[in-house]
Amino acid sequence: MTSLEKALESADRNLEPAVERLFELLRIQSISTDPSFAPECRKAAEWLADDLISLGFEASVRDTPGHPMVVAHHKAADEQAPHVLFYGHYDVQPVDPISLWESDPFTPQIKTLANGQKVITGRGTSDDKGQLMTFVEACRAYKDAHGALPCAVTLLFEGEEESGSPSLKPFLEAYAEELKADFALVCDTNMWDAETPAISAGLRGLVGEEIVITGADRDLHSGYFGGAAANPVHILARIIAGLHDADGRVTLPGFYDGVTETPDAIKAMWDTLGQTSETFLGEVGLSIPSGEKNRSVLELTWARPTAEVNGIWGGYTGEGFKTVIAAEASAKISFRLVGDQDPGKIRDAFRTYVKSQIPADCSVTFHEHGGSPAIQLPYDSALLNKAKDALSQEWPKPAVMIGMGGSIPIVGDFQKMLGMESLLVGFGLADDRIHSPNEKYAYQSFQKGIRSWIRILDAISH
Amino acid sequence: MTSLEKALESADRNLEPAVERLFELLRIQSISTDPSFAPECRKAAEWLADDLISLGFEASVRDTPGHPMVVAHHKAADEQAPHVLFYGHYDVQPVDPISLWESDPFTPQIKTLANGQKVITGRGTSDDKGQLMTFVEACRAYKDAHGALPCAVTLLFEGEEESGSPSLKPFLEAYAEELKADFALVCDTNMWDAETPAISAGLRGLVGEEIVITGADRDLHSGYFGGAAANPVHILARIIAGLHDADGRVTLPGFYDGVTETPDAIKAMWDTLGQTSETFLGEVGLSIPSGEKNRSVLELTWARPTAEVNGIWGGYTGEGFKTVIAAEASAKISFRLVGDQDPGKIRDAFRTYVKSQIPADCSVTFHEHGGSPAIQLPYDSALLNKAKDALSQEWPKPAVMIGMGGSIPIVGDFQKMLGMESLLVGFGLADDRIHSPNEKYAYQSFQKGIRSWIRILDAISH
Repeated sequence: MTSLEKALESADRNLEPAVERLFELLRIQSISTDPSFAPECRKAAEWLADDLISLGFEASVRDTPGHPMVVAHHKAADEQAPHVLFYGHYDVQPVDPISLWESDPFTPQIKTLANGQKVITGRGTSDDKGQLMTFVEACRAYKDAHGALPCAVTLLFEGEEESGSPSLKPFLEAYAEELKADFALVCDTNMWDAETPAISAGLRGLVGEEIVITGADRDLHSGYFGGAAANPVHILARIIAGLHDADGRVTLPGFYDGVTETPDAIKAMWDTLGQTSETFLGEVGLSIPSGEKNRSVLELTWARPTAEVNGIWGGYTGEGFKTVIAAEASAKISFRLVGDQDPGKIRDAFRTYVKSQIPADCSVTFHEHGGSPAIQLPYDSALLNKAKDALSQEWPKPAVMIGMGGSIPIVGDFQKMLGMESLLVGFGLADDRIHSPNEKYAYQSFQKGIRSWIRILDAISH
Repeated sequence: MTSLEKALESADRNLEPAVERLFELLRIQSISTDPSFAPECRKAAEWLADDLISLGFEASVRDTPGHPMVVAHHKAADEQAPHVLFYGHYDVQPVDPISLWESDPFTPQIKTLANGQKVITGRGTSDDKGQLMTFVEACRAYKDAHGALPCAVTLLFEGEEESGSPSLKPFLEAYAEELKADFALVCDTNMWDAETPAISAGLRGLVGEEIVITGADRDLHSGYFGGAAANPVHILARIIAGLHDADGRVTLPGFYDGVTETPDAIKAMWDTLGQTSETFLGEVGLSIPSGEKNRSVLELTWARPTAEVNGIWGGYTGEGFKTVIAAEASAKISFRLVGDQDPGKIRDAFRTYVKSQIPADCSVTFHEHGGSPAIQLPYDSALLNKAKDALSQEWPKPAVMIGMGGSIPIVGDFQKMLGMESLLVGFGLADDRIHSPNEKYAYQSFQKGIRSWIRILDAISH
């Protein structure tokens, strides 16, 4: 029996007590956004620290202005082995509307769904207590089999992820030296499907802008002034209409600087995933891709940059009709970035374009709403490929490397503040109903998730 | 002394009691929109009926589901003389904020403003009690001088003009035979300036549309779906941007069918009024005409059709930022019509255009918000020119024929329901602060307004 096999055997043998431990954590009502649950949040942090101490970590609960963090360290048997930081969060979403839960959100149960899937039900099962415990149990199994871990492990568990992580950045700054590792493992993501594990190799960046276009110094009567006075809504509409050309490309000069083409091999892999415009968009009642021509929906959402209006308003928006020419029209506009696109340059190009569209007697003001570059692990990185092979050995189908259209702020923070890349692996499923009533985590996600981490820890340590 | 001179002399001789009568009417707090003032509205109606009876009219207060109407009739001395319907309203706007009034809104006073203008102050002085009493006093002076009126006169005084006239159409329908006359006189408009009387010969029509564009069946995360899913705000922006060409003309096919050019002589008259882009738009902080090229601001707002977005909304419009692709985007859009533009055809052309811009997997719904054609008296009509000459004899400067960019619903109702054209003459001034604190009516507007109506009645009767 190899050292890996021994650890996997230990995990299987101890699955029942592992589930019991997860249930203990799930019973703690650690809702971070509601101050009346603050004691429960602390209780969850203390439970985790105690559990980690019991398996040989040096662990402590660290106070913050909000809910506490848990930080734990464990040395590797071999001092040359890499050092990883694992991140997860112990806080959960509120449970309203409680009446829609089929069983109590804080009384976890094992159930078999109508489709035959065996699941663990309860708030936080998938987001994120179930996921983070796969890693803790993987460490326990490895130690049980070998009395040691194959690499140095630092754990960081946050208690404010569901309420905007207000304490996270100051904490990373204050404990940068202590938290820094060779790379981070972030377990807050999904599998491709129940048989196919996934590694997120890219996360799109984001630039947010709010613009306010001002015309007259008051709202005007469209009868008295219509046809002569500038209408800020028209100006705004022209600006938005001009952001894309007929091929769906963003027209800002220099917008595609730093955008790299996804390797053909990766695009070919994505094409095998069986996701078409009809299946991807069909989920939300659409069918026709609306962005750049001649690219798959997965490429469009994972690996191509975008410009999207997220909100627009101006003039009279109530019941009935009011023939007004608004003094102001506003929009919130965001750009999703990929590759090496520079958020600052894109913001500048956007503002220059907008200003060029404003008549001399009108004006525009800009409000910045954040900006972060894309994150892209090289598809040929050793870390990525070791994790891919490890996952492929555990699951029925080979692991796929995917992109993520959205951003996970912690990944950007790790990169910016601690200089660490993140490996994003998780075992959630799209139908886990996170943030909703009847949240669940597949029993197999927990079981094979533990085994997956054992394989990954083993693979990356040599 | 001619018969006209006799009547004018009577008006001058009786000016003081005429002002006293106006004050009596102004003291009645006939705020139509506030139900607690309903008894005051009835009191104003009864006061008017009593006053008209006292000067020989057959007058009565007519109940409606809301505030009552006053209807009064007086025969002409000569049965061949024309029959006119004079319309006005006795209700007034609320007085809030009361703290901004320099004297009590329902205690009318005669004051001299800092600019030397002698005025009557109080709620309703200009809108519309002062204006309607100019006509009543003209009738009184004419009768006083001649014991008769030069034409048959019907009066219709409404008590709900400031609260949307809910009872007006049913009333016109029920009493169509009784109210029908050769033409209507409507006294709810302004002079061009304090020395120049004006007749409104044209009123733009209006087509109101609300459109809702639907994309996905829910709001989407712009990270997961951005770049692939249709964004209804983008579609709406393209629709709005496409409504005008580079020359400011509306692009809908057939939009300009029925639009006639204003006669050169009329445009030349408008050019003498001293209104430039800078003066007209400068009032509201603008300076550059935004509509069709190479037309004056007066022509643009009085005699040219427009398309204006009056309201737009979609997606997240609150504080901060939310990276959402909205399921829906909406706009309220109105068209101002001139000449013989057909509201139905323009609505159809707009809907056809909008539908052509909707991707096959998205949809649009339309909500109709009214439609009425433009009203345009022929500039060479005998009625118009008699009134113009009469006014020119009374005031320091010749009367001008102007257009009105907005609509006055009663004028359309008279045309549609009673088959009558309306002559729009009024003696309000732009700075009368109607609907605002410290409303006033120029003393000269009252005095010369009475004399103007005497001249007009005399002119149109032969």
